[in-house]
Amino acid sequence: MRTKSKLLITVASLFLVLAFYPASRPAFAQAEGDKIYLGQLNKLQSEILNEERIILVYTPTGYEQSETKYPVMYLLDGTYHFHHVTGIVDFLTREGRISNMIVVALVNTDRTRDFSPTRDISNRGSRFETAGGAENFLEFFEKELIPYVNKHYRTKDYRILVGHSFGGLFTVNALLSRPEMFDAYVAISPTFWWDDNYLARKARPFFKQSPDLRKFLYISMGNEGQLMTESAERFTLLLESEAPEGLVWHYDFMGDEDHGSTPHLTIYKALEDLYDGWELPPGLLDSTVAAVHEHFLKLSNRFGYEIDVPEAVLNMMGYTALGQENFDKAIKIFKLNVKKYPNSANVYDSLGEGYEAMGEFELARENYALAVEKGEIIADPNLPIYKQHLENMQDKLGLQ
Amino acid sequence: MRTKSKLLITVASLFLVLAFYPASRPAFAQAEGDKIYLGQLNKLQSEILNEERIILVYTPTGYEQSETKYPVMYLLDGTYHFHHVTGIVDFLTREGRISNMIVVALVNTDRTRDFSPTRDISNRGSRFETAGGAENFLEFFEKELIPYVNKHYRTKDYRILVGHSFGGLFTVNALLSRPEMFDAYVAISPTFWWDDNYLARKARPFFKQSPDLRKFLYISMGNEGQLMTESAERFTLLLESEAPEGLVWHYDFMGDEDHGSTPHLTIYKALEDLYDGWELPPGLLDSTVAAVHEHFLKLSNRFGYEIDVPEAVLNMMGYTALGQENFDKAIKIFKLNVKKYPNSANVYDSLGEGYEAMGEFELARENYALAVEKGEIIADPNLPIYKQHLENMQDKLGLQ
Repeated sequence: MRTKSKLLITVASLFLVLAFYPASRPAFAQAEGDKIYLGQLNKLQSEILNEERIILVYTPTGYEQSETKYPVMYLLDGTYHFHHVTGIVDFLTREGRISNMIVVALVNTDRTRDFSPTRDISNRGSRFETAGGAENFLEFFEKELIPYVNKHYRTKDYRILVGHSFGGLFTVNALLSRPEMFDAYVAISPTFWWDDNYLARKARPFFKQSPDLRKFLYISMGNEGQLMTESAERFTLLLESEAPEGLVWHYDFMGDEDHGSTPHLTIYKALEDLYDGWELPPGLLDSTVAAVHEHFLKLSNRFGYEIDVPEAVLNMMGYTALGQENFDKAIKIFKLNVKKYPNSANVYDSLGEGYEAMGEFELARENYALAVEKGEIIADPNLPIYKQHLENMQDKLGLQ
Repeated sequence: MRTKSKLLITVASLFLVLAFYPASRPAFAQAEGDKIYLGQLNKLQSEILNEERIILVYTPTGYEQSETKYPVMYLLDGTYHFHHVTGIVDFLTREGRISNMIVVALVNTDRTRDFSPTRDISNRGSRFETAGGAENFLEFFEKELIPYVNKHYRTKDYRILVGHSFGGLFTVNALLSRPEMFDAYVAISPTFWWDDNYLARKARPFFKQSPDLRKFLYISMGNEGQLMTESAERFTLLLESEAPEGLVWHYDFMGDEDHGSTPHLTIYKALEDLYDGWELPPGLLDSTVAAVHEHFLKLSNRFGYEIDVPEAVLNMMGYTALGQENFDKAIKIFKLNVKKYPNSANVYDSLGEGYEAMGEFELARENYALAVEKGEIIADPNLPIYKQHLENMQDKLGLQ
């Protein structure tokens, strides 16, 4: 079946978009009174922190029906941000603007302890009595949390760290302490003033020693008073003069926002920035498979991990060719999708539609039957559609 | 217990905010492998539409633990927008910027039929063969859907309608057809060109006949090509010259967005606009209960339904007084909260903390015990905290 994709909008007319708005079928269970799920709550026992930790995990729509691996966002203060941040990820993914990803949101136990890299003995810092545990918390990430997530979920080797306030302090500190752990950093309203501008003091020698650093860093700051903004600007000046060339960084001053409201818009904008150029350029859908491969090869090089041509993109390319009555091209692309994603049900259904359009009804029936077979295995929510296609084709062939 | 609120940020120092970041305890079930819920899927059989309809319903955090009634957002193309829009509602509510609300997201069956007010016999319109069912869909809202929601959920008589594209067409048409049904309208990238600018043609006489109209209308448009933007501007010109004074409207041209990406930022900005002035002004938390009542009375008049002083606001006022060692004021406010929200558990726990701070340990113990009792009834996720308070107090009193 044709699946909705932002891609439609770039290649087809507006009217096509209006006609093929997202399928009405929700991708979750449908019985009366059913609950709609947002994610999964997991517990892990940390020896390093000597306590049990809770994480909230969001997996992309279709995760259960595929074998795809995903990059992972690690989100601090997870209780507070899990819902709205996964909403952004879901929306921007559907719009084709960013890569889909797993979101791992950490529930706090003692955030002061975990997020602060030192004890701050100044007047304002000394009230945070448990401070100074960031190095230990990074150790927990490296030795326990990331291995746990990689073991229990299908992950690509690309990680984004997102933190707000003290969490922003932790996020920038993570870059300076263990740059190998994350690829992109979103630091929202970070408390750069901590311990006499500890981060700025640490960054200077770090940048000098890391000429080959290739990372993404997005820093935002609302209208949060002199202490917050001045220390942030101080860090920004350092970035301007001393950051290695490969560190792509942005400083976003949001004058209309305050300390509490910065997170949502920051994460939205940071993800758009990080994935600038991700979207398939207009016209590519009715070009060649090779050209589309080239686009994703470039992205693979940029992000440093292998990014396959998504099933949905090949599917749309096939339907685009079909719409142009270029049957050979359509069948070739649908077959390629079957080869790349043999456990998907929809790839067979689409190939079936290709054959049906050509009048190859027996081949169409075979593929609809395969779609139903696979759809039952993976509990595909679109199974009723595949069954309908199969029935119609059996009728056409006089098999019923 | 002290509950996190945006209000903290406006009255207390930044350091207080950092110290009292949102509680680490997530407001959902916590067993290993537990699912995290986003909402509820309901089905209703419509006689008017002669089909079964699915709605996805989000209720605010704490809904099960309270008896509060909420305004309702009706969200079209619900499958697509449910997750990210409820994320915005959750985030902005926690920041204290908007009222919490129930979100009812409608799953499509035939969106062309339901959203379009007429058949459009022009070249571009005639391909939408099932068009023209909006009046019937409004009848479904009025006679079946809204009564269903009011019966099954605790609702205030305030409704917001949100629609995108054809859904935006439906949204503006709803205002012009049955203005009594909704109070606020968010029309995202509406297809004003439909049927030779049908909406503009309909609006002119409607505005003339409705001098007392008091509604909120937010219209957005991305960079979507001449047809879309010109017809939107035409409608905007009409609003400028002929809209009744009581119609508060905004036209938001988003040059960086396209037809698919407008929804998220539009809804974020529209809600902030609709609830401009909702946030408790700085300083009000340590003023008088009467002044806070006055703030919510003004909001009640503006929104046209009774808006109580929220439990969380009174709770924070009590703790503010407690922090200033104004014990009489604190106890008075905590008692008022008990009177207003007798089924809450936390109101008793807070009153207990007030008494404990005064050294009235027996009264503290009594109220902690009530917090535990109520907490068990409503399955309050903070029950372990109340139990801890009770135990500590029993220890202090030598009762264990």
